[in-house]
Amino acid sequence: MMSTPSGALESTQAAEHVWHVNAIRPVKYRVLECSGLFQTGNDTLVTHLFASKGRRRRALLVVDETVARLHGASIQRYFERHEVETSLFPLATTESEKNIENVLRISKAMHAFGLNRRSDPLIGIGGGVLLDIVGLAANLYRRGTPYIRVPTTLMGLIDAGIGVKTGVNFDEHKNRLGSYYAPDAAFLDRTFLNTLDARHVSNGLAEVLKMALIKDARLFELMERHASRLVPDRLLGSPDYDEIFRRAVHGMLEELEPNLWEDTLERCVDYGHSFSPLLEMKALPGLLHGEAVGIDMVFSLILARNRGLTEARDVERVVAVMRHLALPLSNPLVTPEFMREGLEDATRHRDGKQRLPLTRGLGGCTFVNDVTPAELARAVEDHHRLAARFEAAAA
Amino acid sequence: MMSTPSGALESTQAAEHVWHVNAIRPVKYRVLECSGLFQTGNDTLVTHLFASKGRRRRALLVVDETVARLHGASIQRYFERHEVETSLFPLATTESEKNIENVLRISKAMHAFGLNRRSDPLIGIGGGVLLDIVGLAANLYRRGTPYIRVPTTLMGLIDAGIGVKTGVNFDEHKNRLGSYYAPDAAFLDRTFLNTLDARHVSNGLAEVLKMALIKDARLFELMERHASRLVPDRLLGSPDYDEIFRRAVHGMLEELEPNLWEDTLERCVDYGHSFSPLLEMKALPGLLHGEAVGIDMVFSLILARNRGLTEARDVERVVAVMRHLALPLSNPLVTPEFMREGLEDATRHRDGKQRLPLTRGLGGCTFVNDVTPAELARAVEDHHRLAARFEAAAA
Repeated sequence: MMSTPSGALESTQAAEHVWHVNAIRPVKYRVLECSGLFQTGNDTLVTHLFASKGRRRRALLVVDETVARLHGASIQRYFERHEVETSLFPLATTESEKNIENVLRISKAMHAFGLNRRSDPLIGIGGGVLLDIVGLAANLYRRGTPYIRVPTTLMGLIDAGIGVKTGVNFDEHKNRLGSYYAPDAAFLDRTFLNTLDARHVSNGLAEVLKMALIKDARLFELMERHASRLVPDRLLGSPDYDEIFRRAVHGMLEELEPNLWEDTLERCVDYGHSFSPLLEMKALPGLLHGEAVGIDMVFSLILARNRGLTEARDVERVVAVMRHLALPLSNPLVTPEFMREGLEDATRHRDGKQRLPLTRGLGGCTFVNDVTPAELARAVEDHHRLAARFEAAAA
Repeated sequence: MMSTPSGALESTQAAEHVWHVNAIRPVKYRVLECSGLFQTGNDTLVTHLFASKGRRRRALLVVDETVARLHGASIQRYFERHEVETSLFPLATTESEKNIENVLRISKAMHAFGLNRRSDPLIGIGGGVLLDIVGLAANLYRRGTPYIRVPTTLMGLIDAGIGVKTGVNFDEHKNRLGSYYAPDAAFLDRTFLNTLDARHVSNGLAEVLKMALIKDARLFELMERHASRLVPDRLLGSPDYDEIFRRAVHGMLEELEPNLWEDTLERCVDYGHSFSPLLEMKALPGLLHGEAVGIDMVFSLILARNRGLTEARDVERVVAVMRHLALPLSNPLVTPEFMREGLEDATRHRDGKQRLPLTRGLGGCTFVNDVTPAELARAVEDHHRLAARFEAAAA
């Protein structure tokens, strides 16, 4: 039919044509550990930002409200010293405000700032919730603008801030709307943890613990050794803490990189994320993300123990560490009916199979697809009994 | 640092670590020409849908309100006969309703239908506006569900329905929020054009004409030859019409495939899309997309003529074809100030350079970056004079 058919585009010559469109998208980004990112003498960030010539020295900063209060002045001074024109957009970012309305507010700020589509970056500075919202805004605005992640919470540093997922809650469902959209880079500066409240340190440590349980026995040993000091010390000031932090980041990236778009839905990093999305949403604003994940992990440990996958004494060791981290072990919402509903939604999310990650020993992972309502009911009973025993011991 | 560093994930061993994350995303989809897609004996669509085993025979249909009224019963009968459980969600889809609220409404319908994340498809049946909205909903829901495009307008068949762009208008800006998200497949059934109103046929023909002007002289000759019959005949019933249709589709895909994510912002298919986004939004609901594109093309032809890129008599030929297609040539909004504002936003969209596509001769394209306000003002004057002359001739 065509006088000049393209070489690349395949087209079948028939009465009814078929065109085959094929393309490949390479994605790359860097995760850089750093210290004192916004100290005026530090040029790590500006060097990265303006490495490609022709970029205007402009950036829109979306900054968590609390971070803006604590560090806003020094962040703005940093950019002034480096002759970068910025506008600082403060955002209140609790889980309850992780919604599409905030994506729209950021989009309006991007328009007001007059961002060039591909070269003026958006820089998100805050916790996991903020980074998820900013990533989605960057993805959607003019179908994609570059963005930089600067996590300021432990949850952001070792989990939400280093991957490619973006998202907001919708219709009472956790991260129901979102995308996969890689940042240009993520800068991991643990000195932000100095000003992070203890509860949010615990929150992030829940995800570090997850990584230990499913794939890194050495990481669990390190956490167990320092359990009582992890929250007050904020992973700062010792080589063991450096190792804990880096193992958590490395383990996460190692799991993400070969499965960046979740083509495989059997993901060991989903451990603790099967029942917790429903729990977190229904408990709002009662539980932080890591707290809900922690409760899911206790429940999943009991499932593993009841199936003979993980030994009872190892379950006790993990729960003891969680007590040191001041993580809740259970919640009144945990009932057989509720856990069944949670598993049903996780099953739809995993495309019709449970693909439930459970520990194998401590530091290993397996997937099961045959959990029954009766098994859930028994585990709920065991779960509350275990939690009560640990709470009684503390009293 | 790591006891078992990954082979794939590169990590620099230093005091401050750097991780390099690299991945590749292959994207493929098919564009299939077909006829009588929803005739009960036709198994093209169901064969495609359930080619991969294990898929449940379920699909959520999002159907343009008018299409639902005209064809809803036969569409539902089709799926019943093929034993596919469906729910039909009708959507009013004019440009004024191309908004994020409709994306959210579809997301709620997806939840209510209990879609499995990766295997129960969303099927969009309607014009370009509907397909853009459905594509965005499919992209965002649980970070991505499969979807199928069934365009029912000419605009959908040769433009919006065959690419990977999704989007909604926001804050009075055209497609300000959107994404690149490939469908599983697009099914092109021209028999839908039998029930399409004449104005929407003209609307789609504007995009066919665009393709002719920038890259396909033969296509322009065919359009010119049949100019007076294109709207009433709706590209149905002659081998020349088949050729026009297929050249338009092929030309579009040929331009899209090597630049699916618009890494190159010099896109000849952006012809007619420089000043028209602002025009279309400000004229709402006065102009259809193709009508605004047509006015932009007349203006761009004059810019090309004034620069000696396209001859005056070729400009006259194009405008004569547009008259036959009943496309408006101009609009009272076209003023020097307005066109300057339009070009400024296009420049931000093209990352700081005008990258303005203009015709070279008829059937060729070039890009310019140095259009001045004075040049725009002169072209505006010429534009109105030309439009007035053609309108006077018709009166």
